[in-house]
Amino acid sequence: MSVQRKYEREFVRTFFTSPTAVQGEDDSAKMIRSAAGLRGIQAPDVWVPDNEDATAPSMRDEGARNIIDVVAEHGADFPGEIHPRVVWHRDDAEKRLAGFEYMREIADPENGAVDHIDGFVIPEVGDIDDWKKADECFQMIEAEHGLEEGSLSMSVIVESGEAEIALNRVRDEMGKPSNTLERMFLLVDGEVDYTKDMRAMTPTGELPEWPELRHNTSKGASAAGLIAVDGPFDNIRDVEGYKERMEANRAKGMTGIWSLTPKQVEVANKAPLPPKDGTWLLEVGGGEVELVSEGGREVYDGDGVSLSESGGSYVLAIDGDEHELTEDELREELLDRTSYVPSMDDIVESMEEFEAAKEAGKGAIAMTQSATLSIDGVEIDLSKDRMWDEATYQAAQTPITLFQDVYEHRPDQHDALAEIYGSDVVERATQVGN
Amino acid sequence: MSVQRKYEREFVRTFFTSPTAVQGEDDSAKMIRSAAGLRGIQAPDVWVPDNEDATAPSMRDEGARNIIDVVAEHGADFPGEIHPRVVWHRDDAEKRLAGFEYMREIADPENGAVDHIDGFVIPEVGDIDDWKKADECFQMIEAEHGLEEGSLSMSVIVESGEAEIALNRVRDEMGKPSNTLERMFLLVDGEVDYTKDMRAMTPTGELPEWPELRHNTSKGASAAGLIAVDGPFDNIRDVEGYKERMEANRAKGMTGIWSLTPKQVEVANKAPLPPKDGTWLLEVGGGEVELVSEGGREVYDGDGVSLSESGGSYVLAIDGDEHELTEDELREELLDRTSYVPSMDDIVESMEEFEAAKEAGKGAIAMTQSATLSIDGVEIDLSKDRMWDEATYQAAQTPITLFQDVYEHRPDQHDALAEIYGSDVVERATQVGN
Amino acid sequence: MSVQRKYEREFVRTFFTSPTAVQGEDDSAKMIRSAAGLRGIQAPDVWVPDNEDATAPSMRDEGARNIIDVVAEHGADFPGEIHPRVVWHRDDAEKRLAGFEYMREIADPENGAVDHIDGFVIPEVGDIDDWKKADECFQMIEAEHGLEEGSLSMSVIVESGEAEIALNRVRDEMGKPSNTLERMFLLVDGEVDYTKDMRAMTPTGELPEWPELRHNTSKGASAAGLIAVDGPFDNIRDVEGYKERMEANRAKGMTGIWSLTPKQVEVANKAPLPPKDGTWLLEVGGGEVELVSEGGREVYDGDGVSLSESGGSYVLAIDGDEHELTEDELREELLDRTSYVPSMDDIVESMEEFEAAKEAGKGAIAMTQSATLSIDGVEIDLSKDRMWDEATYQAAQTPITLFQDVYEHRPDQHDALAEIYGSDVVERATQVGN
Repeated sequence: MSVQRKYEREFVRTFFTSPTAVQGEDDSAKMIRSAAGLRGIQAPDVWVPDNEDATAPSMRDEGARNIIDVVAEHGADFPGEIHPRVVWHRDDAEKRLAGFEYMREIADPENGAVDHIDGFVIPEVGDIDDWKKADECFQMIEAEHGLEEGSLSMSVIVESGEAEIALNRVRDEMGKPSNTLERMFLLVDGEVDYTKDMRAMTPTGELPEWPELRHNTSKGASAAGLIAVDGPFDNIRDVEGYKERMEANRAKGMTGIWSLTPKQVEVANKAPLPPKDGTWLLEVGGGEVELVSEGGREVYDGDGVSLSESGGSYVLAIDGDEHELTEDELREELLDRTSYVPSMDDIVESMEEFEAAKEAGKGAIAMTQSATLSIDGVEIDLSKDRMWDEATYQAAQTPITLFQDVYEHRPDQHDALAEIYGSDVVERATQVGN
Repeated sequence: MSVQRKYEREFVRTFFTSPTAVQGEDDSAKMIRSAAGLRGIQAPDVWVPDNEDATAPSMRDEGARNIIDVVAEHGADFPGEIHPRVVWHRDDAEKRLAGFEYMREIADPENGAVDHIDGFVIPEVGDIDDWKKADECFQMIEAEHGLEEGSLSMSVIVESGEAEIALNRVRDEMGKPSNTLERMFLLVDGEVDYTKDMRAMTPTGELPEWPELRHNTSKGASAAGLIAVDGPFDNIRDVEGYKERMEANRAKGMTGIWSLTPKQVEVANKAPLPPKDGTWLLEVGGGEVELVSEGGREVYDGDGVSLSESGGSYVLAIDGDEHELTEDELREELLDRTSYVPSMDDIVESMEEFEAAKEAGKGAIAMTQSATLSIDGVEIDLSKDRMWDEATYQAAQTPITLFQDVYEHRPDQHDALAEIYGSDVVERATQVGN
Repeated sequence: MSVQRKYEREFVRTFFTSPTAVQGEDDSAKMIRSAAGLRGIQAPDVWVPDNEDATAPSMRDEGARNIIDVVAEHGADFPGEIHPRVVWHRDDAEKRLAGFEYMREIADPENGAVDHIDGFVIPEVGDIDDWKKADECFQMIEAEHGLEEGSLSMSVIVESGEAEIALNRVRDEMGKPSNTLERMFLLVDGEVDYTKDMRAMTPTGELPEWPELRHNTSKGASAAGLIAVDGPFDNIRDVEGYKERMEANRAKGMTGIWSLTPKQVEVANKAPLPPKDGTWLLEVGGGEVELVSEGGREVYDGDGVSLSESGGSYVLAIDGDEHELTEDELREELLDRTSYVPSMDDIVESMEEFEAAKEAGKGAIAMTQSATLSIDGVEIDLSKDRMWDEATYQAAQTPITLFQDVYEHRPDQHDALAEIYGSDVVERATQVGN
């Protein structure tokens, strides 16, 4: 038994916010009506009709009614979860009261939306006592409306130093008799307001990267069985930057990210899944270059490395140094400088092999990855061994567990997954490790 | 309402220590006498007559008397706050007793200095219980001397793992009935002793950068309404290094820094204020190069980039790659590679525009920054849009709030500010956002 | 008095694990029998017969008996401490019960091993309450076997978010009446399982670097008077990588590291000790290059810098810029770009000088390091001053204190140390600072 997750979804890739009421449109609910229609790879795991920052203060009453209308009508068909965000502020009781009333209205069964509402998102929380105040609102609302206690989940936006400190305490506080914080679901970073709260400044006005905040959020989520989600990536045009941010997040154990557009949702839904094809990387000049697969060889065709052979002796020029090497020395040097990004198929296969070995009573086996590298037309065969034991197996399992979570809960994405990987790989990936 | 700051100063840029008694001088108080005479941009926000590490143990009795003499005589005219540092150690009750007696003497109204003393700095604190012991000394001293409870602020030097952990607890402990930790003012990192306490080592003996300590200090300050200050930068000759450290600190929300000389004070007083002139930056080779403004163009004149044009088609060579581009593609590429550091004037203007837009009922507007870039004599016009909403506005406000805090509390620096920015910009910067 | 360390060893460089029972060998205890025979620089400070992950589940009963046999026979002569690792899991009471029974058996005086057992290593701990459960096992075992309370130390593997949070609480919990957590000794990171627990992923399957975890472990150790140890470095061939990891760890105050082979033990035993010879470093191209000592000069012979002289005027080409400089300007530039890694002898000498100066009543003295640099045959004399005060002295003392700790507790390494440094330096290093 590991830390018990209370909810069906163990992973959330995407947290997509939409304004609940837009001024100057015929239909002020236009944005959420359109979001409610998303399906497949462009539909988020968690959809957040945003009645806070994305919606003008003067439009929020209307926004709450729009949420009710749209969710009552389209919620049943929406493939992801639905978690509206309401107003709240640790330092403003009026805002907290307003947030309470909005939730109360949206969750009223008479209004017909609550059956499709999975929970609410509470922004601007403060210390753990403030989280308890929000939880108390949920308790009263569930009681008044005759909803099961804990049936509405609570997610918070961590956007203050106080809330960051509270991340260390959630685990301890959950389960105490006078709260129902077991309803906690997502811990979402909000770097814009966090930067303001911390009074941080950068020359260009860009947000700091806040690696420690993201670590603390991920650690708090891990300790309490919750899910960590990173904040918005404002530069919507910068798809590469968004992917790099997500790769850095995954190395911290933060699998989810905010998405601002259906296009960002699509990119972020795909990002944590293993690639279709494996890739060899070569370390050059402090960075890593992807080699290109051509006719069964992995080809380097940049200018940073040169390799020549004459009579079994090799000259390798790389990073400003020239090395005269025997074939074995060259292989050794290249082994040190290469790494391999496994494909979905590779991961599944390695897991299957390890399972078979374990079945046969072996605790550890060597997995081999072979390739023919080609640099300046000179070819050399490499093979990399990696020992797999139970711990390696379990760590490698994370992307597969994520895949299976997606497969189980998002049937609307089955076609997209089959298109990416082929049905055979999808089928085996759903089976392995169970 | 945000976390309530108890003190007038919301920002402290500079924490300047001076030895209280120097051996072998006619006047052992020479250093603090000279420090007490600082005015304007060389005078610190917080001046710390240092009766601990900067003063030889054998001179500290005399040092305490020197503090009294100099502060009684010159304290009324000193433009910054005055916070003497006394001895203290979490693991040494004798030192704590000595620190108590020094504070008691310096704060004795009969000695005529206390009216100009804003508080004391307590070094080498341990866990939160140790902070409470120091607070208890303040309580007894205030009671004995008939000073208002809480009238003396307490600042601490965080230079142990125990104290770092306590940073997470200050908020919770403040306001409990048996302490008066509401008197807390500054959280100051002390990396030299911290390094010793952590038993850290580097090959050259240089201090580690301790990014996590600085984050934790800044977070603790944010959560408790206090001010975070970084420790001393020993290499006094290295002005660029000092500026880089402060820029990194500000990205963590740590606005203040220790200063060891009036020259460092001057640099550190100016550093967190926005620049007089905006600058365009171009990403080249993993770093950022400042472009030079010449005749309305932003000129790149390094060797890292080349650009040529022929018949509407462009060739851009950058970071080892050559790209053939149309004008639109070139513009796109350069937009991705440029950023803009706004001037004080730019920030004020953007805030004014956003305020006007908000007044007119708009929640978000696009701010445009335009320039003509010139590379190898080839020119191209760029304009960068950035969406401003309430959150952007509030985050951009931090340097302005800091400026206003300086302007209000440091009239002795008005001339220096007017000289840097011109009176018109200063005038508008004091008005905007209020 | 500083935080009281309860144990003799104040530093642990090496934490060496061996499988306790290997299948398919004539002697299943082969690996631990061989490890028990290690002496000198290949023998670890802490040896961990590993009855958890390194040993197949089916072999662990036999492994426990092997520990007893081998330690009873060879434990008295083993030069390091002996801390077997048993099974445990925060989420699995069956595993906790098994770990308890294994410890009970190994510690049974009838079995003859416990006299040579210093403590046990508990993996997979959870929150602080889980640490207390493990401590309770120790209490019962000590009571049952008539061992002195607290005579068996407890070390933990931090490999979950929950345990990472507990690091902040150890200090507070130690010494409470109903636990005996004063028995705590090592805090060891376990990045493989931590990565799994955090659900972190990297493209190649390599472990993330987890800088925050290592900081938190080091901070927790510092606050509670414990010793921080980093987890295994899997790539056994990569000696340079192992050294770099240890250098980064030491900058965090984490002196110890896991070792998987006697060769890794040797490298890790030497790594934290100051070098035999000092080295000058020159900053070139964003990195640092070691200069080579030749005939009293420090020679740069790479291609990244060129220097020529003509009529007292110098041209220095470095990092893509060419500077025309006077001799003084050149010296200034090179001073900024050089640093010095002191030898053991240098550190001892500087400490001796500072001690003499302090004796003579001086609180701070300037230490000078001089050298003649030679670049392209052009020579220039440099001298670097560094102010030493009490704090510098104490920080510099860390490697010496570590050396003295090694010298006192590891007589089997005296020969290796004399061979590295010469007996004179060893002799003076054992005396200085006492």
